Amino acid sequence: MTQSLVSSYALSVPPRTIMSPGPVEVDPRVLRAMSLPMLGQFDPAFTRIMNENMAMLRDVFQTKNHWAYPIDGTSRAGTEALLAALIEPGDKMLVPIFGRFGDLFVEIGERYGAEIHTMSCSWGTVFDQDEIISEIKKVHPKVVTLVHGETSTGRMQPLDKVGKACRELGVLLVVDAVATFCGVSIPTDAWCIDALIGGAQKCLSIPSGIVPITYNSRVEQQVLKRKKVERGIASDEDRRAAEGHVPIRSNYFDLGQLQDYWSERRLNHHTEATSMEYALHEGLHLVLEEGLENRFARHRVNAQALAAGIEAMGLELFGDPSCAMPTVTCVTVPENVDADEVRSVLLKHFGIEIAGSFGSLQGKIWRIGTMGYSCRQDHVLAVLTGLEAALIRCGASVNHGKGPQAAMDVYDQNS
Amino acid sequence: MTQSLVSSYALSVPPRTIMSPGPVEVDPRVLRAMSLPMLGQFDPAFTRIMNENMAMLRDVFQTKNHWAYPIDGTSRAGTEALLAALIEPGDKMLVPIFGRFGDLFVEIGERYGAEIHTMSCSWGTVFDQDEIISEIKKVHPKVVTLVHGETSTGRMQPLDKVGKACRELGVLLVVDAVATFCGVSIPTDAWCIDALIGGAQKCLSIPSGIVPITYNSRVEQQVLKRKKVERGIASDEDRRAAEGHVPIRSNYFDLGQLQDYWSERRLNHHTEATSMEYALHEGLHLVLEEGLENRFARHRVNAQALAAGIEAMGLELFGDPSCAMPTVTCVTVPENVDADEVRSVLLKHFGIEIAGSFGSLQGKIWRIGTMGYSCRQDHVLAVLTGLEAALIRCGASVNHGKGPQAAMDVYDQNS
Repeated sequence: MTQSLVSSYALSVPPRTIMSPGPVEVDPRVLRAMSLPMLGQFDPAFTRIMNENMAMLRDVFQTKNHWAYPIDGTSRAGTEALLAALIEPGDKMLVPIFGRFGDLFVEIGERYGAEIHTMSCSWGTVFDQDEIISEIKKVHPKVVTLVHGETSTGRMQPLDKVGKACRELGVLLVVDAVATFCGVSIPTDAWCIDALIGGAQKCLSIPSGIVPITYNSRVEQQVLKRKKVERGIASDEDRRAAEGHVPIRSNYFDLGQLQDYWSERRLNHHTEATSMEYALHEGLHLVLEEGLENRFARHRVNAQALAAGIEAMGLELFGDPSCAMPTVTCVTVPENVDADEVRSVLLKHFGIEIAGSFGSLQGKIWRIGTMGYSCRQDHVLAVLTGLEAALIRCGASVNHGKGPQAAMDVYDQNS
Repeated sequence: MTQSLVSSYALSVPPRTIMSPGPVEVDPRVLRAMSLPMLGQFDPAFTRIMNENMAMLRDVFQTKNHWAYPIDGTSRAGTEALLAALIEPGDKMLVPIFGRFGDLFVEIGERYGAEIHTMSCSWGTVFDQDEIISEIKKVHPKVVTLVHGETSTGRMQPLDKVGKACRELGVLLVVDAVATFCGVSIPTDAWCIDALIGGAQKCLSIPSGIVPITYNSRVEQQVLKRKKVERGIASDEDRRAAEGHVPIRSNYFDLGQLQDYWSERRLNHHTEATSMEYALHEGLHLVLEEGLENRFARHRVNAQALAAGIEAMGLELFGDPSCAMPTVTCVTVPENVDADEVRSVLLKHFGIEIAGSFGSLQGKIWRIGTMGYSCRQDHVLAVLTGLEAALIRCGASVNHGKGPQAAMDVYDQNS
């Protein structure tokens, strides 16, 4: 038996002020929930927690959908599960792209054989909904996918008209709300969204590793058409029911099997992630205790204070302000400043984390999150004071001391 | 805005003695690790934890493979990730089946377009390795998949010869060791296993939701042939390198992208599950502190004591004893006893959980786990005394008081 056993490490987690677009900090109540002992997956005490999570998710998703439950995986697991169910090879999919996570829809759709049509607008803006609607009429897709809050550019796409048009035209609308879920109002039913992907480590403010989704009966119909109970546990009746079906291409993301697991049948598919389910429960509980409207207002005020502070420092906000997300603020990196050096100084000396961006925006903008438990006055002021000091350290010129004062003005006006 | 806010629940987790084949109980040190605060995914303090997890996994997998890292998902996410990388439509896959998790390989392989050849033996036994080897020579598959510990039947398949034969024949061997990993010695390299799937909520004894895998350069070659960096973050060089490739069918399970995330390039794919990564770290630390040989011996002794107690009670062990797993003990349900009623009494009155089984064994056997933190003398004695009382409560006849005595004899002989 080969066995080196050379490496055994003590776990070291230094304290941080996390002002990135996630993973953000987590309320101590959620951390405490995660340290609770295990329960068996079919223990009535655990299936009750699962059912309560479904009920709370429905409230937070603002939906009457029966199906509202988490997938055990990171955010894109939710996106892949929905596209795996909806896309069969050759199905048309329209993807309006205004940042990296539009591209992700293309990435995943392609893998499942979609015939993909894209439309683009420049990063830092969003689409006029009428443009999207007229493209839908031209392309006649089966599915339209849209990002609600595009975290890579800090922009938020209005959705109130697109969903209604999709419903009239018999098109399915799938929305990635990973970066806005629990931070901005997304009335799933009122906006006629057929399937929505929420987030965990962003405004819901629990650790990454689980992703809440919801979908309506239009999506469920597609799922049931492809349903297949797993061999090894299928009854004869299950086998008969699946005859002639084209099953979903992924077993892990088979929403038909997940529905059987999340229904009273409790048909084993996987072993639900126990501690993540606890975290989800406590996180949703906190959201509902705060109240959705209060929570959305908190995100608005903190983003407003942060933006005011950034501008008062003499920095420029990136992107079209009319569609700015209230959960991620994008700041243009001044000329002759090394974006990563500033971030390193902030982390090293202040223990404060902010983020860069992707693709064509890499090194061009900083992204500062105001999400969930990290979305608070003390953190906004800490990032403004820290950023000022880091910029000076890196040789940039800023308006000294103006940032925090401008932010405090906003808080005073809103208190 | 529609908003009902009717449901907001306090999290309730009653104490349990979990003697199922998982999720099992978790060491308080792991629970404490899970309550540590968040770190950003590219924070050097976090990437150090990721690297330490890779190093500890190599030791625990008994391998010199570079690639040893977790997938963010439940156990079958590891299986699907490996098959997604290795199987292209039409590739031949040989699946010897001796329980439900052999069937799972078929399920997943089919979805990725494999031409599947199966061989079966009756549930409760395993294969003679020579039989498998001669089938490999007949079928000439690209991939052979084997379950090491078949938790549905409590049997363990010897693997020391199959792997070597696969290597000689140019065939890739993928092994599901979910239910034995960290409970039984699996010398990955010495047995010539090309890819191995470990488990979390079983003998490693951390919560479900993350799955460690390892694979060697033979598998990596297949991965690199299909590698494609995601649009939105790909460089021109990345795009050129991917030309003409047939990408892996799943984005979430794209091992090429996961390698870039788990390498120094740290190319963003998903947001690694922070708290699960902490749990993995502390869990692996505990395994290495105990020492692999000590840990395997602990699993052997507890299973032996449990089996002795079960037989002394007058119950029958299920299956061929020569290939019994030392981590799951299967007990034949006596005639005229309702298997589920006994389990309910055990849970309701004693707070003790044991499991049933699947498919043709449903209602026919109980499965009692001795895994990880649940694998200890006090728990074995608790399940024996509790089971005796529950059986009497359900009208069955047992040898009163014999079970715990027989178990204690085994512990005394081994102390």
